[in-house]
Amino acid sequence: MDLPRRLFAEALGTALLVATVVGSGIMAQSLTTDTAVALLGNTLPTGAILVVLIIILGPISGAHFNPAVSLIFALRRELAVREAVLYAAAQIVGGILGTIAAHAMFALPLIEASRHLRSGGAQWLAEAVATFGLVAVILSGMKFQRSAVPWLVGLYITAAYWFTASTSFANPAVTVARALTDTFSGIRPADVPAFVLAQLAGALIAWGLMAWLLRPSTETAT
Amino acid sequence: MDLPRRLFAEALGTALLVATVVGSGIMAQSLTTDTAVALLGNTLPTGAILVVLIIILGPISGAHFNPAVSLIFALRRELAVREAVLYAAAQIVGGILGTIAAHAMFALPLIEASRHLRSGGAQWLAEAVATFGLVAVILSGMKFQRSAVPWLVGLYITAAYWFTASTSFANPAVTVARALTDTFSGIRPADVPAFVLAQLAGALIAWGLMAWLLRPSTETAT
Amino acid sequence: MDLPRRLFAEALGTALLVATVVGSGIMAQSLTTDTAVALLGNTLPTGAILVVLIIILGPISGAHFNPAVSLIFALRRELAVREAVLYAAAQIVGGILGTIAAHAMFALPLIEASRHLRSGGAQWLAEAVATFGLVAVILSGMKFQRSAVPWLVGLYITAAYWFTASTSFANPAVTVARALTDTFSGIRPADVPAFVLAQLAGALIAWGLMAWLLRPSTETAT
Amino acid sequence: MDLPRRLFAEALGTALLVATVVGSGIMAQSLTTDTAVALLGNTLPTGAILVVLIIILGPISGAHFNPAVSLIFALRRELAVREAVLYAAAQIVGGILGTIAAHAMFALPLIEASRHLRSGGAQWLAEAVATFGLVAVILSGMKFQRSAVPWLVGLYITAAYWFTASTSFANPAVTVARALTDTFSGIRPADVPAFVLAQLAGALIAWGLMAWLLRPSTETAT
Repeated sequence: MDLPRRLFAEALGTALLVATVVGSGIMAQSLTTDTAVALLGNTLPTGAILVVLIIILGPISGAHFNPAVSLIFALRRELAVREAVLYAAAQIVGGILGTIAAHAMFALPLIEASRHLRSGGAQWLAEAVATFGLVAVILSGMKFQRSAVPWLVGLYITAAYWFTASTSFANPAVTVARALTDTFSGIRPADVPAFVLAQLAGALIAWGLMAWLLRPSTETAT
Repeated sequence: MDLPRRLFAEALGTALLVATVVGSGIMAQSLTTDTAVALLGNTLPTGAILVVLIIILGPISGAHFNPAVSLIFALRRELAVREAVLYAAAQIVGGILGTIAAHAMFALPLIEASRHLRSGGAQWLAEAVATFGLVAVILSGMKFQRSAVPWLVGLYITAAYWFTASTSFANPAVTVARALTDTFSGIRPADVPAFVLAQLAGALIAWGLMAWLLRPSTETAT
Repeated sequence: MDLPRRLFAEALGTALLVATVVGSGIMAQSLTTDTAVALLGNTLPTGAILVVLIIILGPISGAHFNPAVSLIFALRRELAVREAVLYAAAQIVGGILGTIAAHAMFALPLIEASRHLRSGGAQWLAEAVATFGLVAVILSGMKFQRSAVPWLVGLYITAAYWFTASTSFANPAVTVARALTDTFSGIRPADVPAFVLAQLAGALIAWGLMAWLLRPSTETAT
Repeated sequence: MDLPRRLFAEALGTALLVATVVGSGIMAQSLTTDTAVALLGNTLPTGAILVVLIIILGPISGAHFNPAVSLIFALRRELAVREAVLYAAAQIVGGILGTIAAHAMFALPLIEASRHLRSGGAQWLAEAVATFGLVAVILSGMKFQRSAVPWLVGLYITAAYWFTASTSFANPAVTVARALTDTFSGIRPADVPAFVLAQLAGALIAWGLMAWLLRPSTETAT
């Protein structure tokens, strides 16, 4: 597929992903005072839309929707560096448009800076673990059962919303976009850089570890 | 398959879909005061029944259950205009019977006009986005992974219930049927025309956009 | 497979199904005062275990776990009448053992008569609709996508728990077994016969209707 | 695959499984006072991560993550005794690291002895039933639909969290790891041995029963 349409697919997919994360958070927050119920109402739509978006846009662009994932593909030389940069730009622009779309649908100001504090070593560890797991799932899934990858990513994020203290952003473009909403899923702009660094660290660790774990065996397989 | 049975399948499928939307809304509303819990109890059955109905009736009629979808198939010349009109009629009749069936099962008056106000620009935008996404999912899914379409539609609507401010009607026949229930999932009859217009607008935008995005590339694919 | 093991599989499957329905109802009821949350905690395990049981026991016995389903297979001459009777007996015995197992796991008296009133025309209509849908799903699924049937049944029951006023028993053996528990999922013994009749009526209607709807077309398919 | 990497995969998978069980329990407990909602927030991530981990690590090590499962494979002579012992050790070490990882992500002391009492005949019966079902599902699934096993295990545990009074530990390594957290999913160290014995008993019963039930028939199959 030509590059403009691949970039459009990355932007569209990230926009719909962020619109789902932010929009379902707004919906959930407006309907309940039980935060665990709200998180369920945030988790299930996110997991579901990931399966859908990766299946319908994957054949066009690869359906990264995530600069950390595009980075790993560049490191694996499956994506040119220039294309990876353009992918990341498309993802960030798409993500911001997703926040704007969610706000418009819920009649909120189109952009607001979040005041949701998310910081500290435990949160950063959580983001590193979350992104480590995401990249490990993608790399192993692509090797062993490629057709299952959309389902694996949706299920993994469904779990990671709950088992990581940060609810698993695991995505620099989504993190930037969520800095622009002062609702359930927001993050203070000042807290974004550390989250992104933690995400990239987790992705790189997964890349290195899975290169070893998935390397073809030199002895006879069991 | 002969046309009468195709029309019957469209009516039956839309009836069961509406019975699920309306019935699960009544059930949920009667069991909890937490509206987010009620929406979960409305969302999961709707997503589940869509997967089922599209798999078991798709081979008979295509399993549109939605005049906006039949319109797109007519525009793509995969359904004759006369058949599309009959499909829409069968869907609307089926949908109304679905509301009646749900009311009968819950011992309510068979038909009641809804007093649930759903109006305004944000709601209309939400319906346009919801139907845009639904049609985009169907068109891309049919091209890239046809067997997954029932799952994609079920998962998409699961997400769209939460990320759109309108809870994603995304279907003119279902909208008409839901005007006839004064319960959780209802919509005031006066609010129906604007919803339907927004849905058709979203469907047409998806049709145009996906025609461009999914067009075979003239250069070598990546 | 020889008949004794087929009967054992029917009994084991129905026992595990009832243990899930009754056990998850007891668990849910003991953990929350929100009845919709309790019903979610009853629904998800039931849908999940149905997928599992049908996949792992289907190749042995067909995985009916339901006298109404065995009746339809007998009418379709895919099961001898004598075997259908034995199937139903195995299902009823298995179901009762399932209730006993659930009670034992939750340290309750092994058998108790339910005092949960479930009666009246709306409830009976709900049971007829629920069983109609179940049989229609099975017959159409077997024709069009046999490997999906376990998933279709699990998803259908997930939906039917919510869209039918009776929470969709849809199974005479399960109904008998649930008469023996005075917990969340129980039904008064006096209310059982009408439920069973409604279930059989729904099953027979589905059998007749699907015979027409699924009959091969005499004209060229569209 | 060489043994060190197989053992690493068992440790990694068990660590991520335990991190999900413990972490989602901490998250759920901190967000709600409704214990059924908390259990939903504990159940869905556990079921989801099991599907993911078994698909991505199964081709490396078999994805047991459970000494009771490794025991059964050793009894079936599909795993050498020495390897089964090493598997169990890797699972236990991995599980403990999983608890530590969850605690670190939620800024809790890395290890704490649980004070959560889980004892008595009903609980032990529940653990035996839970592990019986798990092993039966794995053995039958491997015979009839191997590619479905990851999904079957995820769905089975989703159900078993609710239908067993003990919330289905069903895994000696996970039981040990959960003794080291004084949060939602913990178990008193003193209660661990009886749980493990019950789990092994359930696994052995399933092994014997399924050997009979799944044995090829000597007469012509129906």
